[in-house]
Amino acid sequence: MSVRAGIVVTGTEVLTGRVADRNGPWIAGRMLELGIELAHITICGDRPRDLEAQLRFLEAQATDLIVTTGGLGPTADDLTLEVVARFSGRGLARDPALEARIAKILEPLLARWPDLDAEAVRAGTAKQALVPAGAAVLEPAGTAPGMIVPARRATVVVLPGPPRELQAMWPAASASEAFLAVAGAAGDYRQSTLRLYGIPESEIAETLRRAQGTVEGLDALEITTCLRRGEVEVTVRHEPSSEEAWRAVADLIAERHPDTLFSTDGATIEDVVASLLRGRTVATAESCSGGLMAARLTDRAGSSTYMTGSTIAYANEAKTALLGVPAGLIEARGAVSPEVADAMAAGALERHGADVALAITGIAGPGGGTEHKPVGTVCWCARTTEGALLAERMRLPGDRREVRDRCTTVGMHLLRRLLGGEADPPA
Amino acid sequence: MSVRAGIVVTGTEVLTGRVADRNGPWIAGRMLELGIELAHITICGDRPRDLEAQLRFLEAQATDLIVTTGGLGPTADDLTLEVVARFSGRGLARDPALEARIAKILEPLLARWPDLDAEAVRAGTAKQALVPAGAAVLEPAGTAPGMIVPARRATVVVLPGPPRELQAMWPAASASEAFLAVAGAAGDYRQSTLRLYGIPESEIAETLRRAQGTVEGLDALEITTCLRRGEVEVTVRHEPSSEEAWRAVADLIAERHPDTLFSTDGATIEDVVASLLRGRTVATAESCSGGLMAARLTDRAGSSTYMTGSTIAYANEAKTALLGVPAGLIEARGAVSPEVADAMAAGALERHGADVALAITGIAGPGGGTEHKPVGTVCWCARTTEGALLAERMRLPGDRREVRDRCTTVGMHLLRRLLGGEADPPA
Repeated sequence: MSVRAGIVVTGTEVLTGRVADRNGPWIAGRMLELGIELAHITICGDRPRDLEAQLRFLEAQATDLIVTTGGLGPTADDLTLEVVARFSGRGLARDPALEARIAKILEPLLARWPDLDAEAVRAGTAKQALVPAGAAVLEPAGTAPGMIVPARRATVVVLPGPPRELQAMWPAASASEAFLAVAGAAGDYRQSTLRLYGIPESEIAETLRRAQGTVEGLDALEITTCLRRGEVEVTVRHEPSSEEAWRAVADLIAERHPDTLFSTDGATIEDVVASLLRGRTVATAESCSGGLMAARLTDRAGSSTYMTGSTIAYANEAKTALLGVPAGLIEARGAVSPEVADAMAAGALERHGADVALAITGIAGPGGGTEHKPVGTVCWCARTTEGALLAERMRLPGDRREVRDRCTTVGMHLLRRLLGGEADPPA
Repeated sequence: MSVRAGIVVTGTEVLTGRVADRNGPWIAGRMLELGIELAHITICGDRPRDLEAQLRFLEAQATDLIVTTGGLGPTADDLTLEVVARFSGRGLARDPALEARIAKILEPLLARWPDLDAEAVRAGTAKQALVPAGAAVLEPAGTAPGMIVPARRATVVVLPGPPRELQAMWPAASASEAFLAVAGAAGDYRQSTLRLYGIPESEIAETLRRAQGTVEGLDALEITTCLRRGEVEVTVRHEPSSEEAWRAVADLIAERHPDTLFSTDGATIEDVVASLLRGRTVATAESCSGGLMAARLTDRAGSSTYMTGSTIAYANEAKTALLGVPAGLIEARGAVSPEVADAMAAGALERHGADVALAITGIAGPGGGTEHKPVGTVCWCARTTEGALLAERMRLPGDRREVRDRCTTVGMHLLRRLLGGEADPPA
């Protein structure tokens, strides 16, 4: 039996776009793992009427599970619990034991901010200790408790807004009796992801169209393709009985796109590069990416085993002084040129004592473009101490932010190819 | 008269959390500027029934304007226009002139990917040239045209999913006759933002509570506060007639929180630091932030006028070789210590030839923590060539990602204070 769910994200700061929502996507991922079918995510501001309308909409859409995020704070505009109580037809009552536990959590905070208004804090704590009749309490991960509230048709899981608190509370929420009573009925779903680089999305769409004629049971697969940071992701969700159909599709993609398919086991490009690096060290030399390449290489826990460091040489003088790029070369070829990228990579190898180095120099815009080197022009060079080399020059589309981000994707794939043994023929 | 709006974001990759939605927040920002009251954002997958349900929900919520994003591609799972046509009770008809314009746009793409299936491309183009009766066409910014479709109560603005295409299409959409017929009725709203750093959100809540007793016309202000990357943002939206009430609230906040209020004109910390830097150059020396500080300082267009570069010294040997931090100091005090942060800043000043340098060294986790230096412990040091110095040591909450990000916020504010003339007393 399929379990259908909806997510309600609350908060005027999210609705108005001032803060990017991280909770909806995160909970969506957990639901996917649990085989729960997510139908809708809705976002509303701190207005009780809009929140209640969204809850009623999700109920009318036959959801079994509704997860709300945010609006559990101590202040007056935090209204979620009041609205959920009304929606589920349950009265709110103060839970003195819970109130005492919240007060205990606040003690160190009160000690750290001695000027805090104690009366305001007490009022906030009393508000946070209001529990709808018959609801299960989820212990606070910050100061706000969560709740699981049975409503008429659906069960409402009420979670706090700060992503860290929400994520810390999730294991208790999803293991609770009230949650399992609903979600335990979900089917066993599997999800697989293929990743390709250097191919337009329409080519994958065409391959999937061809699969329609040749793969039996294709309709039982829920396949989505999407462009993500310059890569194409093909994700499929299916019941265990459709494993064979999925295998056939994966084989067809591997057969038709052997050069661009780089991950079949869900590994990201970060995973692939980290595993190829094993035992070797890497450094970067960056201009237009301004540290984003180094930040991406150090994003993973444990990256200190392979990342030695990076020199960001934004100014031309820095390219010369810190990476040993001859000033004459910059003058002759320009700071954005394959030759300067090459010299930056060589400089990073030597100065950082790394086994592999990646250099990026380009024009992120919006200014600085010329007729021959328009905004978006970027040169990459990856080098090993053994002298293997891979270079790339491309004009990236998009605005400054997109160009800078895409720089790092191209860089990751250049590293992947170099570490995998590819190299340009010697000049 | 107030104009009420909803946004529908479509796409299984967004619903399932694999891709973060950038369109909802962006359109929300535009609506705020136009004085349109945004009530709901809803997200659905590529399922026609769920999309139609969301359109009907927004209609029932008395919206005048509905903006949809995504689902306009050439492939079979791009269904938005079909659903919007059904929802608005309008038939779809092929527009041969539009089809020819799309084909023209595709010509260079076809030349670049010679293996593309021409028949599949033709079928996709024919699909994208279907127009609901009576709809206004918005010329493609990529290959997909947008549409403005009058429905029963609301007007539906149908926009493509790629953020760049959507943003490029917005000026034409919002200037169109069909759009202005609805949105032209919106009131004149103003929005102001105050930003504070180093203060808990509850303190601002308390100040706003006090305002209730003293500020006349407070109820006419729509005030929201939120925590964002370690700062507290207070945003108010109001009609011009409430300007005085807003001024009174702003004055009260300035009076009660003089040390933590750093922006009253909407300027971000990036704006403030960039403007304080005017004429001076900055460099960074980074360990745990792994390039994120440099990336943040180079995020703005024109940052090359003040950013010289950065040395990311992830390994201890790199701190010694590239920043001149004595190996004995690292051994005696540890890589994460105020002394090493200080030496890193001094090294960055000298090697990058900058006027100001900021160093960050810490334990981002999840591993590497000790009893005395648990995960999240970070030391910062900001220095000028004149010898002024500001140091900070803190234990940041959160996971690796949050610690690394928060590092940069603390770093920005240390730079702001140093550039503003603050300095620690000489040791």
